[in-house]
Amino acid sequence: MTTETLIRPERSPREAEFGDLYAQVQQFYSHQMQLFDAHDADRWAATFTEDSVFDVPTLDTPVRGRAELAANVRRNQVQQERSGDRLRHWIGMLDIQPGRNDELHTRCYALVYITPRGGTSKVLRVCVMEDVLVRVRGKWRTRHRVVTRDDLD
Amino acid sequence: MTTETLIRPERSPREAEFGDLYAQVQQFYSHQMQLFDAHDADRWAATFTEDSVFDVPTLDTPVRGRAELAANVRRNQVQQERSGDRLRHWIGMLDIQPGRNDELHTRCYALVYITPRGGTSKVLRVCVMEDVLVRVRGKWRTRHRVVTRDDLD
Amino acid sequence: MTTETLIRPERSPREAEFGDLYAQVQQFYSHQMQLFDAHDADRWAATFTEDSVFDVPTLDTPVRGRAELAANVRRNQVQQERSGDRLRHWIGMLDIQPGRNDELHTRCYALVYITPRGGTSKVLRVCVMEDVLVRVRGKWRTRHRVVTRDDLD
Repeated sequence: MTTETLIRPERSPREAEFGDLYAQVQQFYSHQMQLFDAHDADRWAATFTEDSVFDVPTLDTPVRGRAELAANVRRNQVQQERSGDRLRHWIGMLDIQPGRNDELHTRCYALVYITPRGGTSKVLRVCVMEDVLVRVRGKWRTRHRVVTRDDLD
Repeated sequence: MTTETLIRPERSPREAEFGDLYAQVQQFYSHQMQLFDAHDADRWAATFTEDSVFDVPTLDTPVRGRAELAANVRRNQVQQERSGDRLRHWIGMLDIQPGRNDELHTRCYALVYITPRGGTSKVLRVCVMEDVLVRVRGKWRTRHRVVTRDDLD
Repeated sequence: MTTETLIRPERSPREAEFGDLYAQVQQFYSHQMQLFDAHDADRWAATFTEDSVFDVPTLDTPVRGRAELAANVRRNQVQQERSGDRLRHWIGMLDIQPGRNDELHTRCYALVYITPRGGTSKVLRVCVMEDVLVRVRGKWRTRHRVVTRDDLD
């Protein structure tokens, strides 16, 4: 047997890497959104770069950097503990496009589900989320995020 | 070091390929559904084969080929611009089964979310979608699609 | 050309395996949930280990083993055929953590959609699902499952 027969045929390195890349990004978002919904402010903020920009329609101005991001999560927590609402953020239809310098551009849909205390769950918002991801010490981090809401556009 | 130690152990080629295949199909559907929701008629139609058949309960007869598919998207666009509704199609629970001749059979759930202009988002439809995918010049294309709706079955 | 140039560079075996692993688990859940919604009692029960424990808030006590699991699905079927409701279980935000001895720990969100006969689809429940998966003869199986509901917590 020659060495070549042991090696995957018919796929370019780019194709071969795609499955791992796509799974890493899915895992990244799952982890990031679960931290957000759990109000785990500092660990969630750590999934963004230090110089990150977070632009969502529910905030008047874009949030910049981890300290502001974490502060924002803590405000959400106070508000939700008061109201009794539980939110779940859900990512889907993930389209990833490799950019320059190991950057990744992603565009996906984001749903927010709300469950009032003891009440009936429902869809709260339908959004589109566009990120620039970069690898920092081997881990994906969000450098830039823009979210738009279908009910506000 | 022998060459063999550099090569992934303990997995058959079939297993090794599965991760890439599954990610490719997820990426394919994300891209296809985003084009559909953006009313990007020609690029969406190009994700189907020339001889494709598209059988959905909202249409009286199956749609055949790219020209008819694109025309359909343009009709949706006119209708939604008039009504002010924004739709999002969302695929999940993707089950893929390799078939003969590099064909792929997929079965998944499809949700449709609707947001009226300035209004509240909600689930519009819950569907099951069954596709036959083929590779055309290295890219996945839908050759055959059947969609059923939970509210009509 | 040396042999090395044919082999994927720059990734550790752990990274290389992640894409396949993540896809296998997604495929596993898609298949498992589709069997559940189709009331395919025995095939669904076979996606759990013989000694499995299934702890969900809609049941008074945890279900143990395949026979009890299958019996439960058959009860659901009778109930839904009577009521005319059709349910769809949907998994997302899948976070996987390899454990000891080839065990996998997963934490994900689970949505349940309901469509009354001829009626309007809606979200029924928002849940969090935590599994321990093990490989049995090369196939993933659920050994332990705990589900919590956002409306009951």
